[in-house]
Amino acid sequence: MYLSQQFPKTLREDPTLQSSPGTRWLLRGGFIEQLASGIWILTPWGLKVRRCIESVIRNQMEQLGGLELELPILQPLELWELSGRAETYRQAGMAFSVTDRKGQDYFLAPTAEEVITRFAAKHLRSYRDLPVLFWQMATKFRDELRPRQGLIRGREFLMKDAYSFAADQQGMQQQFEQLRQAYAEVFTRLDFDWLAVEADSGTIGGSGSLEFMAETPTGEDTLLRCQHCGYGGNQEKARAYFQPAVSDLLSQPVMQEVHTPGARSVEDVAQQLGKTAAEIAKTLFWLADGRVLGVVLRGDLELNQVKLERLTGASQLALADAETVFALTGCLPGFVGPVGLTDKPEIGWLFDQSLQTLLEWICGANREDWHLQHVVPGRDVQISDYVDLASAAAGLNCGQCQTGLFESCQGIELGHVFQLQQSYALPLEAHFTTAQGKNEAFWMGCYGLGVSRMVQALAEQHHDAKGLIWPWTAAPAQILLIPVNLKQHRAEAEKFYQDLCRLGFRVAFDDRDLRLGEKLTDAEILGFPVQILVGRAWQDQAQLEVRWRDTRNWDASRFEQLKPDGMPQALMSAENLLDWLSSLSGPNKP
Amino acid sequence: MYLSQQFPKTLREDPTLQSSPGTRWLLRGGFIEQLASGIWILTPWGLKVRRCIESVIRNQMEQLGGLELELPILQPLELWELSGRAETYRQAGMAFSVTDRKGQDYFLAPTAEEVITRFAAKHLRSYRDLPVLFWQMATKFRDELRPRQGLIRGREFLMKDAYSFAADQQGMQQQFEQLRQAYAEVFTRLDFDWLAVEADSGTIGGSGSLEFMAETPTGEDTLLRCQHCGYGGNQEKARAYFQPAVSDLLSQPVMQEVHTPGARSVEDVAQQLGKTAAEIAKTLFWLADGRVLGVVLRGDLELNQVKLERLTGASQLALADAETVFALTGCLPGFVGPVGLTDKPEIGWLFDQSLQTLLEWICGANREDWHLQHVVPGRDVQISDYVDLASAAAGLNCGQCQTGLFESCQGIELGHVFQLQQSYALPLEAHFTTAQGKNEAFWMGCYGLGVSRMVQALAEQHHDAKGLIWPWTAAPAQILLIPVNLKQHRAEAEKFYQDLCRLGFRVAFDDRDLRLGEKLTDAEILGFPVQILVGRAWQDQAQLEVRWRDTRNWDASRFEQLKPDGMPQALMSAENLLDWLSSLSGPNKP
Repeated sequence: MYLSQQFPKTLREDPTLQSSPGTRWLLRGGFIEQLASGIWILTPWGLKVRRCIESVIRNQMEQLGGLELELPILQPLELWELSGRAETYRQAGMAFSVTDRKGQDYFLAPTAEEVITRFAAKHLRSYRDLPVLFWQMATKFRDELRPRQGLIRGREFLMKDAYSFAADQQGMQQQFEQLRQAYAEVFTRLDFDWLAVEADSGTIGGSGSLEFMAETPTGEDTLLRCQHCGYGGNQEKARAYFQPAVSDLLSQPVMQEVHTPGARSVEDVAQQLGKTAAEIAKTLFWLADGRVLGVVLRGDLELNQVKLERLTGASQLALADAETVFALTGCLPGFVGPVGLTDKPEIGWLFDQSLQTLLEWICGANREDWHLQHVVPGRDVQISDYVDLASAAAGLNCGQCQTGLFESCQGIELGHVFQLQQSYALPLEAHFTTAQGKNEAFWMGCYGLGVSRMVQALAEQHHDAKGLIWPWTAAPAQILLIPVNLKQHRAEAEKFYQDLCRLGFRVAFDDRDLRLGEKLTDAEILGFPVQILVGRAWQDQAQLEVRWRDTRNWDASRFEQLKPDGMPQALMSAENLLDWLSSLSGPNKP
Repeated sequence: MYLSQQFPKTLREDPTLQSSPGTRWLLRGGFIEQLASGIWILTPWGLKVRRCIESVIRNQMEQLGGLELELPILQPLELWELSGRAETYRQAGMAFSVTDRKGQDYFLAPTAEEVITRFAAKHLRSYRDLPVLFWQMATKFRDELRPRQGLIRGREFLMKDAYSFAADQQGMQQQFEQLRQAYAEVFTRLDFDWLAVEADSGTIGGSGSLEFMAETPTGEDTLLRCQHCGYGGNQEKARAYFQPAVSDLLSQPVMQEVHTPGARSVEDVAQQLGKTAAEIAKTLFWLADGRVLGVVLRGDLELNQVKLERLTGASQLALADAETVFALTGCLPGFVGPVGLTDKPEIGWLFDQSLQTLLEWICGANREDWHLQHVVPGRDVQISDYVDLASAAAGLNCGQCQTGLFESCQGIELGHVFQLQQSYALPLEAHFTTAQGKNEAFWMGCYGLGVSRMVQALAEQHHDAKGLIWPWTAAPAQILLIPVNLKQHRAEAEKFYQDLCRLGFRVAFDDRDLRLGEKLTDAEILGFPVQILVGRAWQDQAQLEVRWRDTRNWDASRFEQLKPDGMPQALMSAENLLDWLSSLSGPNKP
């Protein structure tokens, strides 16, 4: 491709007020353009990147024997009523809905489990037809409360969704494992710095779900990774381990009230009593579908609402208002605690497992300006069971190996795979005939990849202070040819351009009538991995000046780093260059 | 691809109540599946066909240097307000509209002129940036009143839309001509039986629009083609020629009332008076944005509402009710006419050019059960001008050459190209700077192709009594290999399969454990162009049994037609077969 015919131009000025370096560089390079909040145009450059990503995914799916199809965007609401998800999506306000001229209602596809299950039910009749894997690359919609960070949280986006159908649980697990491996291969080929973490299944349902995350400081998700066993989990799912303290029956002190004037927060109490937050039990009152819950956890930890949702199965969760709390405890929030209230039938009590590390607590006394100390669980508070409700955090013990410590990082979700079990096939009555002639519901899996989001996740991970650095497999052009002086070197560069195109590389030719400095600045912003200058060295010594945009992976055998902030550069003959190019890895390489 | 792994299966029974043979065969072959009215799933087979079509289009667009991008489906309504089209689309009820959680309104892209004009205005600043051609392959939506005929009139469909930007009218016309040629090449490569016709620009606006039509008996559009000069036009646009009768001033009879009891229709009047419908002038009253129009045309012709809309520029058109007619004429519809009413300021009169062939009319007398005869235009009715309001029809003279006769056929619209002039750039203030430093609005063109519709248009044109017959360029598999006895011939067929794949053909291998008869029936339904049986002839004489699905183009030099209703067949050596395959034309051929 010739740059004079490409579009749009790069921007010389940084776009203001952008939420992440990825958004900033994609805008400056002219890869994306905003039409409305969370709604983006993919420009010719941006679309070229996405097509490369699509091609890596397609390649993997074809290897697996997946069948590509295309499901509609307009999905009749009645299908969502059958699966029971219509109400959930409506309450969350996440789905865009449309009414046609005849009054029929539709969701704009947020995902397609219902449609594909119905389709499979019609066409897969026998165990002989199984297993099957369907997939599509299709636009999805979510009316996000806060669209942000460019393509990362858009309201319209391209998703690759796959759906597996098996005859039994084991078959489902095999397909899940195949897809997990295929997706891992996709991320590796695209040069993502990624990890897989255990995740909550959210509104999709099912169990055994895994998220693939691109690690980056601007990622929305907090991830925990065990330094010892390698386990990874989303904060909404990861479980920490808390070693129970061994009780010393002889020296249990007597519970007593202690005056804590104005100390409404854990921090205030800790300070007034000379304790740490971890020695305090904090009590929160929640309303779960109208029922009052008393939740107690260690003062240094945060309640995780997703865990609370999953545990209670409640569809509406909110912190109880002060009036409700006062009516139940005789006291306003800040000084409440479970002592004396655990027998009240109108409160359901939940005690977080983190409390097990404490032999005695400090907690609210249900009396303004007073707390209780030396509260001994079992003696002063009845506890039948401990549950996991606190967010895991860096520094806590890993719940998997109980040995290592969690470290945390931020990540962008690239994909999410689910073992759906029979949770869609049963309500939608999607059955096949077993070898024994019985009716059985399909065992399903579903597998999503955020395709447009990957364009930006790559940009978030691959840039420096001068612009983007596309990995070889996703680069809209892998090689950029720049004649140093257009009039003088055009013919030679053009010949070389044709040769490289013929070898199957994606090549750009900078035929614009601009100063060399401007061309090099653009080359840095646009981020094509290999940049070749055809100039003086070519005429004098038949050498090409090769610049390598990817400073992370400096190939010392061939490139010297000319300046500390410069790109690795080398003079190479055409022969050596082709030799080096053919050594670069990647599935799109010829 | 192996048929045992493909999906879904063909149906043995004809689906009932289908509107066209194309729909019937696509359903029987398992290429499409209905989800809701006008909303279809493309199954793996159907999607394969569409991908072939996409690839032919992409190839043409790349040759033109078009820039592919992707515009959002959710289009802010405010953009449509600026262009003035929001109201038109709302009144017609054609656009699906969506409101987001913040109360912002969007159309689901029915087309994208506004969005691309806005995008171009931001990025194309100078005459040096022009001309440019953008295009995309993207889902579009129209809330059709009567969705029908499978993918032909769907409510959600894939459209390829291109938009050209030029600095002046001549530049626009050059781009239009380039696109016209590129689209013509697309249809020819896909083996369509097609024609280009002059068309009305409808809600898109602009002028100089051309439709590409696939000729088929089940097509929705009526087309007229001149047998003499080759002109083609949509019935909404084609203009017939009516030779004016030469007036014989001496023998003009006197106008007189004639009793026509109960004769409300042209047919009744003609019968009672022993005349033909073509000798009668019929009068219709219409309401155009509230104003009354009296429309007079020859009794044998139909008023064309699209022509009336274009002529009047009215956004609301309806036949006047009987009360309104009575108030104006003193008579109910059926006996009304223009005589004595042409001076009434509350009626706007329009006389169709077809009346010019008549020296005298028969028309309503504005008195129940009475008509007037010997009405001489000019003498008894004042006519300032004749206009074109009647639908052209077969047997009328062509308006282009005034010599040939129109013949009519039915067609499916495959594409529509428009010269938009500056009709979007002006209201959306999309300007560039000319060489003289002045501000000028872009000269635009837009070019639509119905991509999903083409899948079905091919099926409508290419089938016989036994199934589909895909053309070489669009066939999901070009070659089908059938081992006559799976156990016996699998290894040899498999080797041949690998060879053909390596040569770049799209090949299917029927590895299913079925009787040969069933396989051959499926082969006929699925319609892969070349079918090769590996069987006895292979073992005995190293000959392959080659069947050619396309009976229309029987290649007598190689194939014999074994039975009158059978496929052309031949025994060929592997060498001869490859020789013949490589002689088949088509852009996807290796």
